[in-house]
Amino acid sequence: MRIHVINPNSSAAMTEAIGDTARRVCSNGTTITADCPPGSPASIEGHSDGVRAAYHMLGLVEQSDPADGYVVACFDDTGVDGLREIASGPVLGIGEAAMHAATMLACRFSILTTLERSVPILEDNAARYGLAARCRGVHAAGLPVLALEDAADDSAFSTVCEAAAAILTRDRSDALVLGCGGMTHLAKRLGDRLGVPVVDGVSTAVRFMEALVGLGLKTGKTGGYAFPLQKQPPKTGDGHV
Amino acid sequence: MRIHVINPNSSAAMTEAIGDTARRVCSNGTTITADCPPGSPASIEGHSDGVRAAYHMLGLVEQSDPADGYVVACFDDTGVDGLREIASGPVLGIGEAAMHAATMLACRFSILTTLERSVPILEDNAARYGLAARCRGVHAAGLPVLALEDAADDSAFSTVCEAAAAILTRDRSDALVLGCGGMTHLAKRLGDRLGVPVVDGVSTAVRFMEALVGLGLKTGKTGGYAFPLQKQPPKTGDGHV
Amino acid sequence: MRIHVINPNSSAAMTEAIGDTARRVCSNGTTITADCPPGSPASIEGHSDGVRAAYHMLGLVEQSDPADGYVVACFDDTGVDGLREIASGPVLGIGEAAMHAATMLACRFSILTTLERSVPILEDNAARYGLAARCRGVHAAGLPVLALEDAADDSAFSTVCEAAAAILTRDRSDALVLGCGGMTHLAKRLGDRLGVPVVDGVSTAVRFMEALVGLGLKTGKTGGYAFPLQKQPPKTGDGHV
Amino acid sequence: MRIHVINPNSSAAMTEAIGDTARRVCSNGTTITADCPPGSPASIEGHSDGVRAAYHMLGLVEQSDPADGYVVACFDDTGVDGLREIASGPVLGIGEAAMHAATMLACRFSILTTLERSVPILEDNAARYGLAARCRGVHAAGLPVLALEDAADDSAFSTVCEAAAAILTRDRSDALVLGCGGMTHLAKRLGDRLGVPVVDGVSTAVRFMEALVGLGLKTGKTGGYAFPLQKQPPKTGDGHV
Amino acid sequence: MRIHVINPNSSAAMTEAIGDTARRVCSNGTTITADCPPGSPASIEGHSDGVRAAYHMLGLVEQSDPADGYVVACFDDTGVDGLREIASGPVLGIGEAAMHAATMLACRFSILTTLERSVPILEDNAARYGLAARCRGVHAAGLPVLALEDAADDSAFSTVCEAAAAILTRDRSDALVLGCGGMTHLAKRLGDRLGVPVVDGVSTAVRFMEALVGLGLKTGKTGGYAFPLQKQPPKTGDGHV
Amino acid sequence: MRIHVINPNSSAAMTEAIGDTARRVCSNGTTITADCPPGSPASIEGHSDGVRAAYHMLGLVEQSDPADGYVVACFDDTGVDGLREIASGPVLGIGEAAMHAATMLACRFSILTTLERSVPILEDNAARYGLAARCRGVHAAGLPVLALEDAADDSAFSTVCEAAAAILTRDRSDALVLGCGGMTHLAKRLGDRLGVPVVDGVSTAVRFMEALVGLGLKTGKTGGYAFPLQKQPPKTGDGHV
Repeated sequence: MRIHVINPNSSAAMTEAIGDTARRVCSNGTTITADCPPGSPASIEGHSDGVRAAYHMLGLVEQSDPADGYVVACFDDTGVDGLREIASGPVLGIGEAAMHAATMLACRFSILTTLERSVPILEDNAARYGLAARCRGVHAAGLPVLALEDAADDSAFSTVCEAAAAILTRDRSDALVLGCGGMTHLAKRLGDRLGVPVVDGVSTAVRFMEALVGLGLKTGKTGGYAFPLQKQPPKTGDGHV
Repeated sequence: MRIHVINPNSSAAMTEAIGDTARRVCSNGTTITADCPPGSPASIEGHSDGVRAAYHMLGLVEQSDPADGYVVACFDDTGVDGLREIASGPVLGIGEAAMHAATMLACRFSILTTLERSVPILEDNAARYGLAARCRGVHAAGLPVLALEDAADDSAFSTVCEAAAAILTRDRSDALVLGCGGMTHLAKRLGDRLGVPVVDGVSTAVRFMEALVGLGLKTGKTGGYAFPLQKQPPKTGDGHV
Repeated sequence: MRIHVINPNSSAAMTEAIGDTARRVCSNGTTITADCPPGSPASIEGHSDGVRAAYHMLGLVEQSDPADGYVVACFDDTGVDGLREIASGPVLGIGEAAMHAATMLACRFSILTTLERSVPILEDNAARYGLAARCRGVHAAGLPVLALEDAADDSAFSTVCEAAAAILTRDRSDALVLGCGGMTHLAKRLGDRLGVPVVDGVSTAVRFMEALVGLGLKTGKTGGYAFPLQKQPPKTGDGHV
Repeated sequence: MRIHVINPNSSAAMTEAIGDTARRVCSNGTTITADCPPGSPASIEGHSDGVRAAYHMLGLVEQSDPADGYVVACFDDTGVDGLREIASGPVLGIGEAAMHAATMLACRFSILTTLERSVPILEDNAARYGLAARCRGVHAAGLPVLALEDAADDSAFSTVCEAAAAILTRDRSDALVLGCGGMTHLAKRLGDRLGVPVVDGVSTAVRFMEALVGLGLKTGKTGGYAFPLQKQPPKTGDGHV
Repeated sequence: MRIHVINPNSSAAMTEAIGDTARRVCSNGTTITADCPPGSPASIEGHSDGVRAAYHMLGLVEQSDPADGYVVACFDDTGVDGLREIASGPVLGIGEAAMHAATMLACRFSILTTLERSVPILEDNAARYGLAARCRGVHAAGLPVLALEDAADDSAFSTVCEAAAAILTRDRSDALVLGCGGMTHLAKRLGDRLGVPVVDGVSTAVRFMEALVGLGLKTGKTGGYAFPLQKQPPKTGDGHV
Repeated sequence: MRIHVINPNSSAAMTEAIGDTARRVCSNGTTITADCPPGSPASIEGHSDGVRAAYHMLGLVEQSDPADGYVVACFDDTGVDGLREIASGPVLGIGEAAMHAATMLACRFSILTTLERSVPILEDNAARYGLAARCRGVHAAGLPVLALEDAADDSAFSTVCEAAAAILTRDRSDALVLGCGGMTHLAKRLGDRLGVPVVDGVSTAVRFMEALVGLGLKTGKTGGYAFPLQKQPPKTGDGHV
């Protein structure tokens, strides 16, 4: 079984970290391909970054050999629906994987993300997945995505850990979801320190994807995720009127 | 006041029709710029077309002179949130404009779109806008987008009209929303025939945009629609690991 | 095009202010008729005031020449549904107009109203319009409606401005909706000071109404807003048993 | 204990029938006062009738001796919130009483009302009470309110019974709610014939009101149902500008 | 009319207090049978206690003479749905009775329960009953259930009263629901002190049950509450594989 | 890793089939313990069966060696929350596992269960998990649970297959969820015949449980799933008053 893990942004360091996590958690017999689309933004901080990353991700998948399953390693789940159309194998965003898992482990969960501007995106995603009632809050640590990899590890860990503890108390949540692909390497230490399940999207999505592929399940192709229609060649020029 | 009306697909004929509608309904003193992004799919039929169209639309706007307001002339409202980030002037999708307007005119509305695969996209949009309880149904006429411009007018009109009448009866709705930018030219005739308000997204969005711009309202820039963050130059190669 | 702007309460000063706002923001070629129903409460502060104001408003409209469209200038949107039945032209409440507009401009909005007792009414309206998930809070400034017109302008402005700034911070909202027809004259100054879109219901409703009327759209008459049924003359006395 | 049962329309015959029902079902020691507001519409068929009926109902209560509790005998629950403000004793609409009771007796219920135009009003009420997920459908029998009293009893009964049986099958509901004060006298026969709980709002509201009054519970007066504020005398003329 | 009030836990003292409350509030002519299932947990503090209590409660009812109606005196409403299946007479949980009543008396209510671990259970119940939008908060006083009966009365009262006052202020609620069968005896004093309606589930459920039984209403038996199916005798051993 | 798969009913044949499925789909290195609680109902057909099965299941787990994770093999997910309290390892119901998985594979799904009386239970579960908007319908095939094992295989398969095809067409769903532990053995054939993903709860839950256990995730113990409180010994007799 081969799982294609795509970091939709173009940070090589983050891609490497995500790939490492994926390979560490996957089962024997699973091959992980981890890459990121050239041309994508260096980080995904908001809607327009997400649009561009999704575009380049689709191109990357079309030019890659088909995998058995796909993990989109951006907590915004950018481009997941589009990817479900063009691929046969199942597709999971790390945001949806983590949120679904959190509802299997705890009565209520909170999400810790990096920037305030991502908060409404994650709130909207939680609502769309139907999990808003289980999610007591989405909070920003006030760190840019790339700071998580730039910062000396202990400093970033302390910032995230303090923010997480405060959030759990305030929200009365019994699980924490890490709302950024760049926090992956902090998950285990955070769980040990906080005493609650800390759900990391990358590792959860890889394992859930192994489950779906292992069961022979694929994306449904008779409805909204049907393969794209072939277009007729355009009749006229470049579209400017 | 100048409103930039973007047809996110690359059909020149549809762009022309949309521009004509916009110019016909706009007020004196409003200038309409109507174009479409080169490189975009010829039509937007599902999620992956939407991803690609949104990408090219962002590029088009960045290369264009700033307008006072923007209308995204695809009923899926593809890329609207991303465009709100990069532009100062307000941005309206024709889907959201039409759905909001329908709730101002009728107790319940139904949406008629072209293809079945678009139905869950529009249902999800209605839910995200909070208007799902007012929308009694989203229905597909079974026509591809381009057929609406290709077909001899009367044939397409008859198909759409029969579908619409059946839908209104079944859903017990008192308004019809046309769920495709390519149906714009059918709106008036349909309204006359059906005896209910028929809401066309293009014309509604243009007029609502005139309202927002005329009131001096712009997109809020302190939250989820703040201008994109500048990225640091990437430190390493192309991101492949 | 003539728009009938009805202040459902009977405060002449507020009616005048509302009329002034409407005339200032409307387009060339739009005529504004602004009045209020004699006999109505001096202000609408709660449900029972709303019932009485709605009653007198219906009577006022029945005795007036038909307008092309109607704006109900009370943020509670009192009587809007009833007015949709008896009029042909479209009807907009300033509360619904402002809330819908806020969702076109910002990810999340907050409402500032005058009295605590109005909070659940506005919360219920936001829920009914489907916009509750976008509205992060409805807050009372603790000012009675008439104080807004009585007070020396700067004092009322300062009170409202401080309350608004605190609300935006607490709610992490990127737009403010003014939840009272009597705050209309404060909108522009507030927007300049706060740096977010400040949506005033009166001006928004007037411009949206111009849009609906300009598009030839009228209230649907085949469902819940059909014209009232004629009653048979009662067979017996005054109904006391 | 005295319960004031108000038929908000001005049909003496319906008021008499409602009063008879209330007296038949109430407990020993409960006094029923049943009347209707002079000047109210002869029947409440839609929003504008509801506005007018609510207005006259408030006037009627203000001129009546205070009762221990109030039942508003219109299934639209028109004016209930306003009445809660001006009265001390609790207030129940027959629509809300019946819907709440139905959720105590069955997994899912359906509502049978008279006219199609009332359907969205009742749907909106069910949603506002939070009971929409338990209500599988609101259906119109196609009978005007007054026909229920005019028609020879057996004819009206047969029409309603057939409609009800079809609805229960189609909706797979295990309870029926009678959605009109004028159906009160049909409840018992319908229940016997259909083999499901048939909930009549008038009798349910009277008994629930006995419960609330008997427990010493009154409407909360510290929030949205606080007594109306006294108005300052208007400073200027009749409000026309 | 005989109402069987079941305290699902096995605390004799609490059963006695609940029975006393039920007898004090019931009408003339109503007989109260109050007992609790032997073998049940001493208190219901969480999901697993609820499962066990529900089991023993079903056994108790099967071995008891049929009553006209049943009240389940645990605020978690544990086992209510199961009891509805095996009994003919209506069944009410004290949690649902109190929450429904609160929405008849106030715009918004808050629930005060004993332990934090019960909070998500009650939130989920409120959501399932559809009343979550009216419930501004579920709060734990930090007292174990049995402390309410063990503690000297004044001490427990003071703790509960202070907690309640703080909650009402913070939530801006105009009614308080007592979220534990063991708080029954504190209701009246709390209401006097706090100046808002304080809804006790035991007394409310008893009176609402009198209403339902008095109207001849029974649980619907054609859907999800149909009598249990008879099982065929098992074909094989004890089920261990 | 050892996963304890509990069939909450006491059918040995069904337990065996469920165990076979679990062992067939689990990964190398996973040990499956499959059993059912003696004393439980022979099948779970409604709420009261569920209460009894949950009770016996808790007892079974308390008397068993702790497993690394638990799967509750009843599509009603009976007793899952209680089991989360008493166990350390994660717990998954087959209903929730299947529904979550379906949202990862398709835009919309439908559930096929055995008996009509289970429909509202599954609808309520879908709503509680937040997945109601993705679930277009819950349908009963009209077969009792035990008929699925009793019937000659082809007959049961044909009945289920025809029902499923009709449901998918009517609901316009692109995935089918098998709503009964006893349908497990039909899944693969159904998927091949129907051309859509057919999600079986048993196999999905086993694989998802491997994922959770493999990631070191356990149930959160600081909130609503905290270990049960120790009870003080009861002070008095059997609780009868």
